[in-house]
Amino acid sequence: MDTDELTELAQQLRVDSVRVADTAGSGHPTSSMSAADLMAVLLANHLRYDFDHPGHPGNDRLIFSKGHASPLLYSMYLAAGALDEEEFGTYRTLGSRLEGHPTPRLPWVDVATGSLGQGLPVGVGMALAGRRLGHTPHRVWVLSGDSEMAEGSVWEAAEHAGDQHLDALTLIVDVNRLGQRGLTRHQRDLDAYGRRLRAFGWHTVEIDGHDVEAVERAFNEAASTADKPTAIIAGTRKGRGVRAVEDREGMHGKPVKDAGEAIAELGGRRSIRVDVARPQAAPGNGTARSRPLSLPRYDIGDTVPTRDAFGEALTALGHAHEDVVVLDGEVGDSTRAEYFAKEHPQRYFECYIAEQQMIAAAVGMQAVGHSPYAASFAAFLTRAHDFLRMAAVSRASITVAGSHAGVSIGEDGPSQMGLEDLAMFRSIHGSTVLQPCDANQAARLVAATYDLAGVRYVRTMRSGTPVIYGPDEEFPIGGSKVLRRSDADRVTLIGTGVTVHSCLEAADALAAEGIAARVIDLYSLKPVDGDTLSAAAEDTECLVTVEDHHPEGGLGDAVAEAFGDGRPAPRRLVRLAVTNMPGSATGEEQRRAAGIDAESVAAGVRLLAEKIIR
Amino acid sequence: MDTDELTELAQQLRVDSVRVADTAGSGHPTSSMSAADLMAVLLANHLRYDFDHPGHPGNDRLIFSKGHASPLLYSMYLAAGALDEEEFGTYRTLGSRLEGHPTPRLPWVDVATGSLGQGLPVGVGMALAGRRLGHTPHRVWVLSGDSEMAEGSVWEAAEHAGDQHLDALTLIVDVNRLGQRGLTRHQRDLDAYGRRLRAFGWHTVEIDGHDVEAVERAFNEAASTADKPTAIIAGTRKGRGVRAVEDREGMHGKPVKDAGEAIAELGGRRSIRVDVARPQAAPGNGTARSRPLSLPRYDIGDTVPTRDAFGEALTALGHAHEDVVVLDGEVGDSTRAEYFAKEHPQRYFECYIAEQQMIAAAVGMQAVGHSPYAASFAAFLTRAHDFLRMAAVSRASITVAGSHAGVSIGEDGPSQMGLEDLAMFRSIHGSTVLQPCDANQAARLVAATYDLAGVRYVRTMRSGTPVIYGPDEEFPIGGSKVLRRSDADRVTLIGTGVTVHSCLEAADALAAEGIAARVIDLYSLKPVDGDTLSAAAEDTECLVTVEDHHPEGGLGDAVAEAFGDGRPAPRRLVRLAVTNMPGSATGEEQRRAAGIDAESVAAGVRLLAEKIIR
Repeated sequence: MDTDELTELAQQLRVDSVRVADTAGSGHPTSSMSAADLMAVLLANHLRYDFDHPGHPGNDRLIFSKGHASPLLYSMYLAAGALDEEEFGTYRTLGSRLEGHPTPRLPWVDVATGSLGQGLPVGVGMALAGRRLGHTPHRVWVLSGDSEMAEGSVWEAAEHAGDQHLDALTLIVDVNRLGQRGLTRHQRDLDAYGRRLRAFGWHTVEIDGHDVEAVERAFNEAASTADKPTAIIAGTRKGRGVRAVEDREGMHGKPVKDAGEAIAELGGRRSIRVDVARPQAAPGNGTARSRPLSLPRYDIGDTVPTRDAFGEALTALGHAHEDVVVLDGEVGDSTRAEYFAKEHPQRYFECYIAEQQMIAAAVGMQAVGHSPYAASFAAFLTRAHDFLRMAAVSRASITVAGSHAGVSIGEDGPSQMGLEDLAMFRSIHGSTVLQPCDANQAARLVAATYDLAGVRYVRTMRSGTPVIYGPDEEFPIGGSKVLRRSDADRVTLIGTGVTVHSCLEAADALAAEGIAARVIDLYSLKPVDGDTLSAAAEDTECLVTVEDHHPEGGLGDAVAEAFGDGRPAPRRLVRLAVTNMPGSATGEEQRRAAGIDAESVAAGVRLLAEKIIR
Repeated sequence: MDTDELTELAQQLRVDSVRVADTAGSGHPTSSMSAADLMAVLLANHLRYDFDHPGHPGNDRLIFSKGHASPLLYSMYLAAGALDEEEFGTYRTLGSRLEGHPTPRLPWVDVATGSLGQGLPVGVGMALAGRRLGHTPHRVWVLSGDSEMAEGSVWEAAEHAGDQHLDALTLIVDVNRLGQRGLTRHQRDLDAYGRRLRAFGWHTVEIDGHDVEAVERAFNEAASTADKPTAIIAGTRKGRGVRAVEDREGMHGKPVKDAGEAIAELGGRRSIRVDVARPQAAPGNGTARSRPLSLPRYDIGDTVPTRDAFGEALTALGHAHEDVVVLDGEVGDSTRAEYFAKEHPQRYFECYIAEQQMIAAAVGMQAVGHSPYAASFAAFLTRAHDFLRMAAVSRASITVAGSHAGVSIGEDGPSQMGLEDLAMFRSIHGSTVLQPCDANQAARLVAATYDLAGVRYVRTMRSGTPVIYGPDEEFPIGGSKVLRRSDADRVTLIGTGVTVHSCLEAADALAAEGIAARVIDLYSLKPVDGDTLSAAAEDTECLVTVEDHHPEGGLGDAVAEAFGDGRPAPRRLVRLAVTNMPGSATGEEQRRAAGIDAESVAAGVRLLAEKIIR
């Protein structure tokens, strides 16, 4: 399109943004209007996208990091003929695919946005995968607001993009100087953003974002810049084109007051249809090759850390499935993700100590057809909580492994202990949460996550635990293992991970004293095996949960929730968990101090036996 | 000290680091040895600190962001005479104050470190408070590793420090080029760090970190630089001084193999005692002035959002207590923290969209005597999860308010909905978690957090709810309110926040049909009112929890946990929570879709009445 056509298209995007928010009675038209010229030029002259084949590997990727500008995005889809007027009018209503912030309920939206500062990190993941593993060239465009440049995650991403020479990635910063509540920190100082990005290895272009010729030149400059990502830093005016709102404070996140007048001021409705360029290659079938999986096998009685089994199973998965990629936050020697790196260096992504970027990259990579496994210490995964939460909204399928779970890590102390991770991962919508207690179980569970939808979490341990299962044992998701059982059982001990071993040892000690205890290995914390727990609640007087985690949100709660549908509850449910603030000590001392070692479990049951269970 | 003395002191710090880790059998001596010259110069010639009065407002603040270099920090305390040799030898053992990573169990440690990338953001909080509110000049020194510069939180902090001209803040980057698992991204490229920090408004000095004269000059340059924070970027060698480990990979996080030989190579043990300079001013009593608190009062029957009451109560608290400071992440108009800003601008800190920095600054400010209240959307607080977790290890007392809780926010969709926040905050060690359902309760609870130890969370709502409590009603922490009660109660409905109103409405509808339902307002989710819940479990057949939160980790789990000490459990516990993935819709439609509105609650109870409760 030429300048005049682009200007008209931009006005159409503004008009449509104004009217869709007006119909809905809410939304962010002014944040859309500032970026309309930028997106008009992108849509008409630069984007390559086959709307009929959203999974086409040659499709460019467009991420609206400023997700609140959804009216603009949907106006682009309308202009491209992907949406019709009727659906366009459903914006922000019950059941509509056109949500307040974009989600993959629309097939052309790869990832959900709306939590600011996530678009660039996700785009980095897509561009990284494209550069390292891609066979079909495509570009990644990220539209960002100026306020969100304050998020640290943006600078993690900027660092990665510069370091990895991601020249297929273009960041477009809509510098409209007004955040939600007033002036941004840098206001109209375009070079404040430019200086920072250049220091991180980027090529930058600073332009007037309403000058469509300048915008066109900037996109061309981005396309012709090799070995560096480009940032187009565009000075714009929020609410551009409507005097009542343009560049004025207090106009964030609300429809334009007199929409009819505003639309007239913008030149009225238009019906320009953009014929978006298709990618050059054919769609292809996109299926990665798979070979039979040959998991590691461990001998019963050996002592092996579950993190080792994770690393070895991951390596085997890499051989079996070409789409498996692994990311780690500079602790691959600890998480054992490094094992994978040694055999599949091309598919291993060192994310350095940047957990937000690590999870964002995983989300980006799965959106372009890979199967990501991301690993760090369980404790440090809390850094990426917002990205994990949004991964669920993105309908992303990724596996996350957290090592160094619980007080059992020992001397390093509480800063390194994952004691909140089960609570975090269980609360993520649609997640699967698994904790193996031995190496064979770990290998099986790691492999089982490959096919699951959603965010899957595997919690591993630093120290070795005895192998108690044979290598051919199966561990269905949502299952459990009853390890000790008799008709005389008076109490049920429920462990997960390291505490399975505490429970077994305690049960053996108690058996010698004539107290029969059932033992359940609850390796699947979400979903949870309600039937086995119900049977235990029926058969025994008391359930005792034992976990190396804070009492809130972990195993004890998972067990209690199994009865939350109204099924008859256990008469007593006693929880042993980490309620103290740990310091430094050996793993065994730590478990004793927390009251989750075998001796504490046995002592607890003896007390129960006197008072309650008969 | 002169050059020769400093060199000797640095060698002593190395020797002591080697031997303390050797005695413990674990720890990070090599990461300590790289920074020994830097810290020797700081301790001997620049730090002002009264070890007998750690609370002295004139004390400099020293944060070991690379907390794993704790052997170096403890060696400094030993040299300063703050620790004796006997306690020094307890490093990393059960009960010792000398943990693997520093925590405030030692009175000279203000904040816990060990989760990398947190020291600078916390230091920014201290320096911000000092610049804006401090009366006694002091400096803030942060020792950082090079690997942790990859964390986005460091760049949030760099941005704040530059923007706010924090010239009392000095960052010392120990560029030893080796991370945990090998080479760092920038290895020995000091200017890679320098360029980036300068772009963020810092003054930088690049030096050889083992040249004590250069180190001395750098500290002087930092002290004489006005209106800009200074970063001393020091090229160093990990394990410096011992050939077997110096600058070699694979030597991270383990004692030096032959400690005796290493100590000999370092010139043997020394016993230099450093007389650390005291602050110039007298200690003072440090008590902020307080006036009587005059909370806002709301009329029963009015409709008021709890976020409004939060803002108004906060403003009143600001009048009552001079030490109250408020931080917000560029959503003060939404959280209503802005109300405070209007009356107490000097004590309001705009953190822009940088939630990690916001919480870190709160932690830093409480360490220097303020009472911080930090606010953002409940959803976006997940960004700061790791900082909240570490705040607990820091024994920090801060209040965090999360607005826009749950699906009730309506059209904006899931990215903006706090649906995991209760799970997150409840799992934080020692936390208090509160959710008011009306304005008077909100005001009281906000005020009640002022005196509590630990991390306190107040969850507020976007939309108005009817005022049901009078302004003089009291709401003890750990309490609840029984709003409907009769001897005929067959079921107990338990709500919190907006769902209290769903429960009340449902109970009234059910009463008309002859089903008597007890209603409990569980405003205190941690601690929880076990006695009232026990009584309800005894009196009624079934407890039904209703929450605008995911089913994991929230109200339902809090209620279940109340019975986790072995007290007789409720026969049935039914949970109504948000199990669907919301889209856009009105708040009322969202609650209906999630099955947590009054009609859904009533329908659920009718079903129970047919089948279970008689």
